[in-house]
Amino acid sequence: MRVFNFSAGPAALPLEVLEQAAAELTDWDGCGMSVMEVSHRGKAFTALAEQMEARLRALLAIPNSYRVLFLQGGATGQFAAVPLNLAARGARVDYLNTGVWSAKAIEEAERLGLQVNLAADEAGSSYTSVPAPQALRLDPHSVYVHYTPNETIGGVEFPYVPETGAVPLVADMSSTILSRPIEVSRFGLIYAGAQKNIGPSGLCVVIVHESLLASARTDVPTVLDYARMAAHGSMLNTPPTFSWYIANLVFGWIEAQGGLAAMAARNRAKAELLYGAIDASGMYRSPVERTCRSWMNVPFTLARAELVPEFLREAAGEGLTHLEGHRSVGGLRASLYNAVPLEAVGALVAFMREFERRHG
Amino acid sequence: MRVFNFSAGPAALPLEVLEQAAAELTDWDGCGMSVMEVSHRGKAFTALAEQMEARLRALLAIPNSYRVLFLQGGATGQFAAVPLNLAARGARVDYLNTGVWSAKAIEEAERLGLQVNLAADEAGSSYTSVPAPQALRLDPHSVYVHYTPNETIGGVEFPYVPETGAVPLVADMSSTILSRPIEVSRFGLIYAGAQKNIGPSGLCVVIVHESLLASARTDVPTVLDYARMAAHGSMLNTPPTFSWYIANLVFGWIEAQGGLAAMAARNRAKAELLYGAIDASGMYRSPVERTCRSWMNVPFTLARAELVPEFLREAAGEGLTHLEGHRSVGGLRASLYNAVPLEAVGALVAFMREFERRHG
Repeated sequence: MRVFNFSAGPAALPLEVLEQAAAELTDWDGCGMSVMEVSHRGKAFTALAEQMEARLRALLAIPNSYRVLFLQGGATGQFAAVPLNLAARGARVDYLNTGVWSAKAIEEAERLGLQVNLAADEAGSSYTSVPAPQALRLDPHSVYVHYTPNETIGGVEFPYVPETGAVPLVADMSSTILSRPIEVSRFGLIYAGAQKNIGPSGLCVVIVHESLLASARTDVPTVLDYARMAAHGSMLNTPPTFSWYIANLVFGWIEAQGGLAAMAARNRAKAELLYGAIDASGMYRSPVERTCRSWMNVPFTLARAELVPEFLREAAGEGLTHLEGHRSVGGLRASLYNAVPLEAVGALVAFMREFERRHG
Repeated sequence: MRVFNFSAGPAALPLEVLEQAAAELTDWDGCGMSVMEVSHRGKAFTALAEQMEARLRALLAIPNSYRVLFLQGGATGQFAAVPLNLAARGARVDYLNTGVWSAKAIEEAERLGLQVNLAADEAGSSYTSVPAPQALRLDPHSVYVHYTPNETIGGVEFPYVPETGAVPLVADMSSTILSRPIEVSRFGLIYAGAQKNIGPSGLCVVIVHESLLASARTDVPTVLDYARMAAHGSMLNTPPTFSWYIANLVFGWIEAQGGLAAMAARNRAKAELLYGAIDASGMYRSPVERTCRSWMNVPFTLARAELVPEFLREAAGEGLTHLEGHRSVGGLRASLYNAVPLEAVGALVAFMREFERRHG
């Protein structure tokens, strides 16, 4: 019996993908071995790797001037890799602080010796909004501008892409990637932990314009070194092959669903259904400003906070799981990644109405 | 139809582990989700993590004064993490160069600004032997001594643990760990990529004495930072949960087989069977000195090198795979990790005899 899983990550995966993986877990591709047991340098796995990159390039319409890397260490690894590769020690960089994840990226850049200019800081709003475009205090001499288009914990999402002129824009798209089309050419570098819309945790996708590789530093740990990883097709060392395999299946599943335009339509519908139910109720409340509410992560509170444990208990009884708010903020949260069907959101909304009827 | 898989890594996994994973891939632990889809901070996964560490501690009899970390980035990540955590820039460290993997570790330490003293250098022997204990040129003022007990490509293995006095000994045990009992207290730090005897690629185990954490540097990338990872139970960021899950099943499988003493007996028998067949033949030859032949990785050559492709073709036809030598050395190689049964080595030896009869 499968449940409806609203986890913020590791998150729900398409059932079709899991069923295919289960069916071929001891004998993949007719080779008499699991995909976990084959050499990453063999023909079968090399073909998988090529298909994976080609599929991602097609889904996101990635221009040829960008390299695509499949690395380890998650987005947290990239919090270090971005400054280490792109900036000299002591260099000045712009960061937009819009939530817990932005703040972690900023802390890591500072730990590694960069001089961080906060081009925006929403800590004062308790991270319930994003800055207006004209409010950004960008330094034209910064090496790059970093921001987090979707904050998984706060549930805020930028409704626009910041305009940074000649300064490369770097985005942590962990909770945005593949949820809708993106205009990749607006960015110098995009990175995303896999465990939301791509596949299992332990994989991080980096999409980087080739001009940034040409000037990258080379005294960084090899596993975080963009130029060397790019030169070796992300196989300078043994990659997390099972994660690559699942990611490839997920990319194929998105294609079969109609690509990112179809994902966007579905994700919009899911988000509207849930926000609509919250706004129509007297019991539930979204703390996030309407203009920057995330499609992917919907935090909400109960008028009577003491009912949260009961809400979670009853929801679990109905097969609705992972609705706890992040331990740093409490309350409730529903993440609505690609693999969460509209039906799941329908079931959640029906449960919320019933819960309100009984406890409101 | 499963084949006999002699891959050097990612390597064969126990069939029982794969079958259990397949059976519960869409519904793990009765929770209605895949283990890939649950929060790493939830009760079920936390219990898995605790069991995994407890099992590894029991198998290796790890003293309480050691911390066990489960990180990303493989052994290549540790080539950087060891110098970054344990040594100041410009510090003097000892490395024993006994093969391709030692050399990579040395290159990374030098790239990151360390002053490497080659306490032994077997490049002159084409990496077919290890130095004698009395031949090591150790510097008593080094910050640590690094060596590779088993070289996966060259197939040499240290028959002894170097004596380094008060200087901590660091070992890349990727191809040694769990193949037999180890005396952990002889080491300051042990690390091992998972994709040989532990589980899928994308996971790296680090066993480190707590005294080394107390003095560790803190300006290193968070994903490679021992002290911070230890403080967070290796969950400072999202871990590669599926790899942890498989590792836990593999540890349980080793327990059920009788632990590391049983593994050692089985691995010795496998190695003796294959080396015996090589030494008894007129066609096959091991390039490695008898005193330091690896139990885990057995490179061998054919008297007529031009027969290698035919050997591989016919072997594949008999369900014997991944027998190519590493692309850097050519020839043939059979890796005999824990999950390769004695029966597989028997089948390989029978095939080798038959091949020699027809082509010798």
